[in-house]
Amino acid sequence: MPSRIAVIGAGPCGLSQLHAFEQARLQGAEIPELVCFEKQADWGGLWNYTWRTGLDEHGEPVHGSMYRYLWSNGPKECLEFADYTFDEHFGQPIPSFPPREVLYDYIVGRAQKGNLERYIRFSTPVRYIEYVEASDTFKVRVKDLQGDREYTEVFDYVIVCTGHFSVPKLPVFDGIDQFPGRLLHSHDFRDAREFAGKDLLVVGSSYSAEDIALQTYKYGAKSVTISYRTAPMGFDWPEGIKEVPLLTHLNGKTAHFKDGSQQAVDAIVLCVGYQHHFPFLADSLRLKTHNRLYPGALYKGIFWETNPKLMYLGMQDQFYTFSMFDVQAWYARDVVLGRIELPDAGAIAHDMALWQQRETALQDAFEQIDFQKDYIVDLANQVDYAPCDWEMTADLFKAWEHDKEHSILGYRDKSFASPCTGTKAPIHHTPWLEAMDDSMVCFLDKQPLKAS
Amino acid sequence: MPSRIAVIGAGPCGLSQLHAFEQARLQGAEIPELVCFEKQADWGGLWNYTWRTGLDEHGEPVHGSMYRYLWSNGPKECLEFADYTFDEHFGQPIPSFPPREVLYDYIVGRAQKGNLERYIRFSTPVRYIEYVEASDTFKVRVKDLQGDREYTEVFDYVIVCTGHFSVPKLPVFDGIDQFPGRLLHSHDFRDAREFAGKDLLVVGSSYSAEDIALQTYKYGAKSVTISYRTAPMGFDWPEGIKEVPLLTHLNGKTAHFKDGSQQAVDAIVLCVGYQHHFPFLADSLRLKTHNRLYPGALYKGIFWETNPKLMYLGMQDQFYTFSMFDVQAWYARDVVLGRIELPDAGAIAHDMALWQQRETALQDAFEQIDFQKDYIVDLANQVDYAPCDWEMTADLFKAWEHDKEHSILGYRDKSFASPCTGTKAPIHHTPWLEAMDDSMVCFLDKQPLKAS
Repeated sequence: MPSRIAVIGAGPCGLSQLHAFEQARLQGAEIPELVCFEKQADWGGLWNYTWRTGLDEHGEPVHGSMYRYLWSNGPKECLEFADYTFDEHFGQPIPSFPPREVLYDYIVGRAQKGNLERYIRFSTPVRYIEYVEASDTFKVRVKDLQGDREYTEVFDYVIVCTGHFSVPKLPVFDGIDQFPGRLLHSHDFRDAREFAGKDLLVVGSSYSAEDIALQTYKYGAKSVTISYRTAPMGFDWPEGIKEVPLLTHLNGKTAHFKDGSQQAVDAIVLCVGYQHHFPFLADSLRLKTHNRLYPGALYKGIFWETNPKLMYLGMQDQFYTFSMFDVQAWYARDVVLGRIELPDAGAIAHDMALWQQRETALQDAFEQIDFQKDYIVDLANQVDYAPCDWEMTADLFKAWEHDKEHSILGYRDKSFASPCTGTKAPIHHTPWLEAMDDSMVCFLDKQPLKAS
Repeated sequence: MPSRIAVIGAGPCGLSQLHAFEQARLQGAEIPELVCFEKQADWGGLWNYTWRTGLDEHGEPVHGSMYRYLWSNGPKECLEFADYTFDEHFGQPIPSFPPREVLYDYIVGRAQKGNLERYIRFSTPVRYIEYVEASDTFKVRVKDLQGDREYTEVFDYVIVCTGHFSVPKLPVFDGIDQFPGRLLHSHDFRDAREFAGKDLLVVGSSYSAEDIALQTYKYGAKSVTISYRTAPMGFDWPEGIKEVPLLTHLNGKTAHFKDGSQQAVDAIVLCVGYQHHFPFLADSLRLKTHNRLYPGALYKGIFWETNPKLMYLGMQDQFYTFSMFDVQAWYARDVVLGRIELPDAGAIAHDMALWQQRETALQDAFEQIDFQKDYIVDLANQVDYAPCDWEMTADLFKAWEHDKEHSILGYRDKSFASPCTGTKAPIHHTPWLEAMDDSMVCFLDKQPLKAS
C-alpha cells in the first residue's frame, strides 16, 4: 500500500506542499497519497478574504485575519514563486506592492494550473490527530461540515500547514471591560472605513499596528494613537498619527498611558499578535512556541524533533513567506520520498542548537533578514527548487527597510527587480496613499480607473 | 467503585445539577462522584459577563453572549428557585425585572451557599466525549487551560449543560462583504453606547432583536431599523424605532428591504439566533435540533433516547429558565439515583411522540407558555423539588405578554408576586427607560443613586 500524507490546511503552505509533490509526480516520481484537509470552503488560507468574524456559519472559529484594502507590506519580489513567476501569471510586469486580491489570484493561479483541488477536502476541519505507536501511524479525525459528520482516517505522515496568524493574543487592561466604544483585536479588523472620523487607539508596535494605523489614516480616521510596550516604531508618521507608551488603563473613553498622557478614543484595535494554536493536535505532537525565526523542537524549521513523520511548514516569524514555504515544502517532500535522509538524533540536535544560538545573537532587522535568507538557502541547496537569487532578495528586504524609514507613507510606491526573472517592476499608476480602490482590475490597469 | 458523573458546564443548568445532587447528599443519600468541567475561569455561564468577543485569551471561542445594561426581559418570579428564593438571597423584596448583575449574584449565591465549587474544574473545556460500549462508559477528554495539557477520564454518566445561546447562526446577504460599517452578530454585542448617534440596522425578530433595539434606543442610537423575515414583532415602538421586511441586499451603507424601501445605516447587528452546537460530542451522542420547545431525541426533554446515561439540560426553547433547569436537574438526579425508573423503549417513544404532537399544534405564545408549564409540572410531580405555584407562573408570563403589547418601553416597570413566597415585588425606584446605571448597588438601593 502506498503511504498516505495528511496535509492540514490549503493556504499558502499547504498549497506549496501539494505543488511540491505534484511536481515530483509530473517528473515521474511515485508519490504518496495526498489528502489535504481545509476547514474553509475555498483555498488560500488567510488570503481568502471573509467578512465574517468570530465564529463562522458552522460555528467554527473564523480563520481569516485579512482585511479589505490590504496591500502587501513587503516587495512581492521577495515572495515570488521561483517556478511560477509573476510574469508568467500576469503576462505583464506588475508593481511591487500589490493589494490582497492580486496576491490571492497569484497563489491560486499556480494551484489551478496544477489542478491541485483534487487533493483537497474543503469544509473539513481537523478535529484531532494522535500518533499510534504500534502501527507508526497517525489517526486523524475530521469533521465533514457539509455532511455534518465526523470520520477518522489513518496516515503515515502529517504536515501541519495551518498558519499562526489566526488566533489572537488578548491582554487585559484596566477598565477595558467598561470601555463604551468599539473594541477589537486586529484579527477581527475588516474595513478601515468603519473608523472614518473616529479617534482610534492602536495597541501594538509590529506589522499589524503599523498597517492598521496607516489604513485607517488613509481612509479618514480623525486621529490614530499607537501605543507601544517596549519601543516606538519611530517612523516619520504623518500629522494625525502619533506613538505613545503603553496603555495603562481606560476610564470610559479616555485612554491613559505610561507617560501620564491621555487621549479620548472612540475605538481600540488590539494589534498585539497571535498565538501558535493547535487544538487539534495531541499534546505529544503539539508545537509550543512564540513567534520566532527558529522555533524550538523543529529540525530544519520543519520536522518535529521527536517524531519527524510530523512536519510543520511556515511556523517561523516571517520576512519571507510564499517562497520560503516552497523551499520548506520541497525539503519535506524529499525527506518523505527518501531523497534526503534525516541524520541521527545527535546531529539533529546539534544543527538545531547552532541555528538557535545564531538566532539568539541577532542584533537587528538586517541580521534577521540574513538569518532567514541563510535558513532558506540551507534548504534550497539540497532540493531541486527552481533557481532564485536569494542574496538579491535579502538586499531587497534591506532596501525596503530603508524605504520605510525614509517614508512610511511612500515606501509602497517603490519598485524592485525580480530575483527570479530580473524583470523590473513598473511604478504603480497611483501612489498608495491615493489608491483607494484595491481591486485587481484597477491595480492591473495601466491608468487609474475613472471614478465611477 | 461509586459511579462517576461528568457535568459539562457550570452555568445555570450545570449549577442546578450540582445543587440537586448536593441536596440529596445533605439528606443522607449516597451520590455518585461529580466532576463539573467549566471552560470559563468562573461560573455562571452566560451570566458571567465578559468584554471579550471572538476568541478568548486561550484561543477558545468566547462563550458569553451577555451585554452590559441587560435587564431581565421576563419577570424574575418566573425563574425563581423554589428552594432559594429572592427573599432569602437578598433579604428584602426586589423589583421584578433586575439587571444582569443581580441575577448573576442570585445564581451564584445559591452555589456559594452549597460550596459547589468543590465539584468544578474551571478553565477546563471538554474536547471530546465518546461512548465505550464494552464498558458502558464515556471517555471524556478535556483541556486543562492553566496547565496547557489534555487528559482523559472515564465516566458512567454525562450531563450536557452547555447552553445553546453561544454559537451564532450567520446568514449571508448580498453586499454584506462590502459593508463599510460596523457589522456583528448579537453574540458579540457588548455595550449599547457604542451605537449612540448611529443609524442601526437590527436583523431579526425575536428576543435579541427586540432587546438590542430597545437598549441601543435607550442609550442614544439615532435610529433603529428592525428587519424581519416572516412577521414584524408589532410592538408599539417609540419614534426612532421602526420595523421593515427582510433585508435583501446592501449597497455600501444603504440597506434595501423586500418592500423596496431602503435605509442608510452605520451598523448592522444580526440578531438571527443561535445554533445548538456540540463539537465535543461524538456523532452518535450529538443532539441535532433547532430551537424548539421539545427537541427530538430527548425523552422528558432530558434523556438521550438511544442512551439515557447521556443527558441534556436546558436544550429547549425557553420561557422558563432557572426553575425549569432545577426541575430537570432533580429529575435527572433521581433517575441516576434509581429513584425514578425509565420506562421501556416503546413507552419512551410514545411519551415523546405525545409531547411533540402537542408542540406541533401550538397556536400562539399563550399555548406555548402552558405547554412548557405542563412539561415542568410533569417532571416536578415526580421529584421532591420545593413547592412552587406553577399555574401562577404561567399566569405571570401571560400578563407579561400583555404588558409588552401594551408598552414595550414600560413593561419592565411592572411588578409581580412570587409563586414561591407570595412576596409582592416593589416597583423599581426608576423607570427602566431612565435607569442608565445597571449596577446591583444602584438597583438594590431604595432611592436612585445621585449622579456622580
